[in-house]
Amino acid sequence: MELRGKLQEILRDIEENYLPSVSLDLVVFGFHESQLKVLLLRFKDSNDWILPGGRVRKDENLDEAAYRSLRERTGLDRLFLQQFHTFGNVNRMTYFSREETLERMGLAEAAAGLWDSTYWANRDISVGYYALVDFTGTVPTPDFMADECRWWDIAEVPHLLFDHNEMIRLALRTLRRQLSYQPVGYNLLPETFTMTELQSLYETILGRSLDRRNFYKQILHYDVLERLGKRPTIPASKAPYLYRFRKERYEQLLNDEDLSVG
Amino acid sequence: MELRGKLQEILRDIEENYLPSVSLDLVVFGFHESQLKVLLLRFKDSNDWILPGGRVRKDENLDEAAYRSLRERTGLDRLFLQQFHTFGNVNRMTYFSREETLERMGLAEAAAGLWDSTYWANRDISVGYYALVDFTGTVPTPDFMADECRWWDIAEVPHLLFDHNEMIRLALRTLRRQLSYQPVGYNLLPETFTMTELQSLYETILGRSLDRRNFYKQILHYDVLERLGKRPTIPASKAPYLYRFRKERYEQLLNDEDLSVG
Repeated sequence: MELRGKLQEILRDIEENYLPSVSLDLVVFGFHESQLKVLLLRFKDSNDWILPGGRVRKDENLDEAAYRSLRERTGLDRLFLQQFHTFGNVNRMTYFSREETLERMGLAEAAAGLWDSTYWANRDISVGYYALVDFTGTVPTPDFMADECRWWDIAEVPHLLFDHNEMIRLALRTLRRQLSYQPVGYNLLPETFTMTELQSLYETILGRSLDRRNFYKQILHYDVLERLGKRPTIPASKAPYLYRFRKERYEQLLNDEDLSVG
Repeated sequence: MELRGKLQEILRDIEENYLPSVSLDLVVFGFHESQLKVLLLRFKDSNDWILPGGRVRKDENLDEAAYRSLRERTGLDRLFLQQFHTFGNVNRMTYFSREETLERMGLAEAAAGLWDSTYWANRDISVGYYALVDFTGTVPTPDFMADECRWWDIAEVPHLLFDHNEMIRLALRTLRRQLSYQPVGYNLLPETFTMTELQSLYETILGRSLDRRNFYKQILHYDVLERLGKRPTIPASKAPYLYRFRKERYEQLLNDEDLSVG
């Protein structure tokens, strides 16, 4: 009954300190050299993959809860998380049988009755956040609820619990749309890069190739790049120019379109 | 005590049938002839203006709750509501003193103690939705909680309760960004319109003027317009072309960027 005691303690802490009927889920995209991946957790003693997620403490802001959950569940810190959608269909959690999962984990007996409180009676409204990072710079670590925490190729994501496949789909749509009104790439490319490398990043996110001339025009329109010298190659006449982001302008574009209302 | 009984009934219904710690708020933008407005409610017997909002029934989807709330609080129906952000700061409701408001409304005595249940102990996480409609085609009607429901010029929005000014600001930013990846205007312009009229709509939403040639290029890039004959004027040589939206293509663009993940 040691395990039952532990579970009970966790659930009591949640019921006392966390908001009822609200949760959050995190879609962390990883980019490196023309590959786009997403971070998934595998439930302990199971083949069930899910997005990392969490709940909101009564005394913390929603955004804080997202960063804390990311840290607790994956060990990752200092990412830039952005909200993309909130999921609230009545049946969004019915794909998941808590009992079945517990049984597979050999925990059915230890956990019997623990979720009977009204706190757990309704589905959660889940707030989705996403981030885009260089996956070679991150070492995700699973929490005690998971056996594994690893990067999956976007094209190979398995069937996930809950509505988590739909979450990834919508997060990816948001990320792609973001390309049309904000620059992307800071911290994903080396400090200096060629236009071809930047275009490759965009193409990887969009999942399609782009017209080179239109791409140059759109990017230059942001006025966010500083052109440096040429990359040292032989012959020099064919060497591409190197660029770097103008950090101030980059951040200005991330917080643009300000308007005072009231 | 008649009033107290009525209030008690309403609160009991909410506690029994609606999710705790979740609410939603609606930013309805109205456009007509170069004017952009937003729909606000005035609390009964007060000068406190707020956005229309509501709560989520345990047995309804989040989106359904948004449409139902809009209908119940403003009498409006058949708008296209889109989520833009979810608001969850710890202090987001402390700007508002329920006691003070009730006192001003002469309801302090009748309402004493009614909100003491744990259901009301935490701030709500509020999901924000927005819509854009032709305000001349709508006749908003306040519900029993409000004395007034009317359109305000965006530039003249007063200080609102809660974080509702911030909600309008973020909804407007989302609407403006939307212009860069989706067409806007269907149902806001006459069935046939000139390019100048369409540009004027965009300029009103953006709050700034646009370069005519770049605007034409962006719009034609969507491939969403069908060019008709010229508007009958004298002299005909100077008459502008009329356009209309290709509805199928318009809807395709609203649901673009589909990707199968799992």
